[in-house]
Amino acid sequence: MAWQSYLDAEQARFVQELLAFVRIPSVSAKPENIADVARAADWVAARLTAAGVQGAQVLPTTGHPVVYGDWLHAGADKPTVLIYGHFDVQPAEPFDLWDSPPFQPVVRDGRVWGRGASDDKGGMMVPILAVEALLKTAGRLPVNVKFFFEGQEEIGSPDLPPFVAANVARLTADMIFSADGLQYSPDQPQIVEALKGIAKAEIVVRGPRSDQHSGLHGGGIANPAMALAQILATMKSADGLVTVAGFYDDVIDLTPQDRAAIARIPYDEASYLAETGAPAVFGEPGYSTRERLWARPTLDVNGLTSGWQGIGSKTVLPAEARAKITCRLVADQDPARVLAVLAAHVQAHCPAGVTAEFQPGQGGAGPFLLPSGHNASGIAAQVLEEIYGKAPYRTRLGGSIPVMTTLLGALGVHAVMFGFSHDDENLHAPNEFFRLDAFRKGQEAYVRLLQRLAA
Amino acid sequence: MAWQSYLDAEQARFVQELLAFVRIPSVSAKPENIADVARAADWVAARLTAAGVQGAQVLPTTGHPVVYGDWLHAGADKPTVLIYGHFDVQPAEPFDLWDSPPFQPVVRDGRVWGRGASDDKGGMMVPILAVEALLKTAGRLPVNVKFFFEGQEEIGSPDLPPFVAANVARLTADMIFSADGLQYSPDQPQIVEALKGIAKAEIVVRGPRSDQHSGLHGGGIANPAMALAQILATMKSADGLVTVAGFYDDVIDLTPQDRAAIARIPYDEASYLAETGAPAVFGEPGYSTRERLWARPTLDVNGLTSGWQGIGSKTVLPAEARAKITCRLVADQDPARVLAVLAAHVQAHCPAGVTAEFQPGQGGAGPFLLPSGHNASGIAAQVLEEIYGKAPYRTRLGGSIPVMTTLLGALGVHAVMFGFSHDDENLHAPNEFFRLDAFRKGQEAYVRLLQRLAA
Repeated sequence: MAWQSYLDAEQARFVQELLAFVRIPSVSAKPENIADVARAADWVAARLTAAGVQGAQVLPTTGHPVVYGDWLHAGADKPTVLIYGHFDVQPAEPFDLWDSPPFQPVVRDGRVWGRGASDDKGGMMVPILAVEALLKTAGRLPVNVKFFFEGQEEIGSPDLPPFVAANVARLTADMIFSADGLQYSPDQPQIVEALKGIAKAEIVVRGPRSDQHSGLHGGGIANPAMALAQILATMKSADGLVTVAGFYDDVIDLTPQDRAAIARIPYDEASYLAETGAPAVFGEPGYSTRERLWARPTLDVNGLTSGWQGIGSKTVLPAEARAKITCRLVADQDPARVLAVLAAHVQAHCPAGVTAEFQPGQGGAGPFLLPSGHNASGIAAQVLEEIYGKAPYRTRLGGSIPVMTTLLGALGVHAVMFGFSHDDENLHAPNEFFRLDAFRKGQEAYVRLLQRLAA
Repeated sequence: MAWQSYLDAEQARFVQELLAFVRIPSVSAKPENIADVARAADWVAARLTAAGVQGAQVLPTTGHPVVYGDWLHAGADKPTVLIYGHFDVQPAEPFDLWDSPPFQPVVRDGRVWGRGASDDKGGMMVPILAVEALLKTAGRLPVNVKFFFEGQEEIGSPDLPPFVAANVARLTADMIFSADGLQYSPDQPQIVEALKGIAKAEIVVRGPRSDQHSGLHGGGIANPAMALAQILATMKSADGLVTVAGFYDDVIDLTPQDRAAIARIPYDEASYLAETGAPAVFGEPGYSTRERLWARPTLDVNGLTSGWQGIGSKTVLPAEARAKITCRLVADQDPARVLAVLAAHVQAHCPAGVTAEFQPGQGGAGPFLLPSGHNASGIAAQVLEEIYGKAPYRTRLGGSIPVMTTLLGALGVHAVMFGFSHDDENLHAPNEFFRLDAFRKGQEAYVRLLQRLAA
C-alpha cells in the first residue's frame, strides 16, 4: 500500500501547506480582497501542478476566477470524475472574537484554526493530496479526473452559471464529487441525499402617497401595514401549513421508506431547542421536525419594514409596508413556478383600499435530490463504510447550494457531496477549525473512492 | 385700529422669527434632541418677554420642560384666559422626501416650509403676536391672559398630567383656548366639538434566541414575523371592523341628529383621495367616511420591524418581530380599558411556537367632546364668523390632543381649539408647511377674541 505510506510520510508537509493556503485572506465578499482571491487561485493551480495534475490553470469569469486541471490518461473505458471545491472564504469579522488571528492559522489540539481551514480550504486540498499520493506512487490514476475549483462560493457563485454553460465540454464528466461537504460527526459518516432550493421575493403594499397622520386619516383609508399582515396571514395557517394554492403541487411526497430512513437517525428535540433558543418546535402538521427541516418546503418571512420603527411612538398611517420572504423548495418544485403561485396568491388576497406588488428576487435555485439507486453515491457510501466502520446515514439538508443545481442543470450529473468537515467547526463564525484526523481520513477516502470507481 | 397697523408693520419680522423658531429641531421623540427641545423652550420664554408678557419662564417637568408667562392686569371683573400651544415637533424622517431640509425652513409661495411650521410653531406664535400687538399699541389687554406652552405634545404629553396637577393654582382660568388647531379650509372656519383619545402599544413576538439560518431552521421552528402578521390579522376584519372583543363596548353611538349634522358639511371623496393619494376609502362598514374619521374609533399599525430590511435578501428566520399600534378613541372609551382588551386579545391569539409580549405605550389620552351650549366656543364662533364672513362648521377631529383631556380633568374647563393650521399642511409628513395668510388672519382673530371675551 505505497499510497498509504506516502500519505503518512508527507502528512506534516500537507499540514504546513494548508497553513500557507489559509494565510491567504481570499474573502470573496470584500472588494479589498480581490487580489487575495486571485492569489489563492494561483496557489491552487501551482499545487495541482505539484501534485502531478496536468494543464492546471486559472481561468477568468465575469467575477472571481476559477481553477481547472485534469489527468485523463486512465483510458476511455474508465469513468471521468469531476471534483469540485472552493478556495474563497467567508469574511472573518468580528476579529476580536477569534482566539488566534483568522489569517495566521495555528495547529492546536489536533486541529488547524483559521478562516477557511474547514470551509473549504482543508476540504478542497483533500482530493488533491489523494491524487498526488496515487500519481507519486503508482504513477497513474485508476479513473480520469478533472478538478474544478471556484473562488465565489461564499457569495452565492453569481458568475458560475455562465462560466459553466460556456465550458460544458471542458467540465463534462460521468460523476461529480464535491469536496465541500460535511460528515455527520467525527465517527459517523453520511451521504447527503437532498438539498433544498430557494425562491425569493418581496411583497410591497402601498396605500397613501406618503405617511399620513393616523388621527386625521385613520378609519378613512386602509392601513398598508395591516393589509400586509392580512396578506401574509393568508399564506400560512395557524398550525404551519402553507396555504398558497399550488404551493405543494410539485412536491415529491416522502415514501414510507424515506420516513423510516429519517426516523432511524438520532434526533434530540431538547438539544435542537437549546441550539436555537426557540420556545418550541413548530411547522407543517403531519411531519416530524426533522422531516420538515430536511424534506418539506417552507415559507419564511425574512424581514418586515413599515412606518415608524424607532424608539417610542410616531402616530403615522404608513404609506407602504414591505415583507421579504423566501421559500425553501424540495424536489420537484420549480422556483419560477413557486414565485408564480405566490404572486397570484398575493394579488388574489390583497385587501381593499391598498395595492400590492409582488417583486420576484434574484438568486433562486432549484432543489436537489439524488435519484434512487444513484451509482456514484452508492460507491461513496461503500467507501465511507469501509473507512468509518459503519454505514453512512442518508441525510438531507435544509440549506441551498446553488452550484449543485448549476452543475446538474449544465452537465446533467447529480454531484455527490464527499467532504470531511463537520457542522461544529464554526464554518461561518469566529474560531473556525478543521480536524487533522478528518484531513487524513479524507485523503484515504478519496484514494479508495477513485479505486472503487474504476472497478 | 392701531393693533392692525402694528400687525401689518411687523409681519415681515414675525415671519423671520418663525423661521428662526423652526430652525430649532425640537423633536420630542428623539433622545438626541433633548437639548434642542430645551433650546426651543428658552426661545419661547424670551419671545413672550419680548411681547410684553410678564414673568415668562421655563419650568421643569419630569420630561421636556414647559413655558409659562402671564399678563393679569385687566381687573378682577374680567375673565382669565389660558392659551395653550406646543413647541416640540414630530420627527422629520424620511429626510430624503423633503423638497427642502426640514430644519432649514424657507418661504415659498406664501408658505413657510419646514418641520413644525404648521404644527405647532406657527400656530403657537399667533396668540403671542396678537398679545404683543395689543400691549405695544394699547399698553394693556382687555382680559387677563396666561400662556402655557409644552414641549412634549408630539409624544403624547406623558409628563404633563403630574405637572398640571401640581400647578392648578398657576394655570387656573375661566376659559382655555388652544392655539394648536385647524380651520376647515382657508376660507371656511370651524369649531371642533370633539377629539379622539388615543391608546398606544407595541406587540413584540419572539422566537429563537437570535436570527437563524432560514434554510437550516425554516420549517423546524415558528417564524416570529409570520406570527406577528397572524396576530395583527385577527385584530381587524377584511372589511375594516375592529375584531377585538370589547373594543366598541363604551362607544357613544352617533344620534340621527349627529349624523345629519356631519352630513351637512360638504365632503368630496375625490378630493379626499387626491389629498392622501390613497387608491380608495376604506373602513368600518355602516358609516360614512367622515363619520369614521370623526366619530368612530380606529386601530392602526404605525410601524413594523423584523429581520433583514436592507437591499436584497438575507435568508434569516428572525428572532423577533415588532408592531407599533395606536387606537383612536371616541367618547366614552377609556384608554386603559382599551389597552386591557387589546392585551387580552393578543395573548388569546398568539400562535404556537412563539411568545407575544404586549407593551402598553406611554401617553394615552381620553376622548374629548364639548358639552352642548358651551359658552367659550360660542364666542369663538362669533369671532370666526366676523373674520371669515361665514359661520363656522361644527366639526369633529380624528386626532388626539391629550392636553385637552388633561386640562379638562385638572382645571374643569373644556378648552376651545382656536388655531389656524389646515389638515393639508403635511403636519406629520415630509414637506410640512404653514400658510402665511392664515398666520396673519389668526393674529387678528386672537385680538378680536380677547376683545369679545372682555365684553
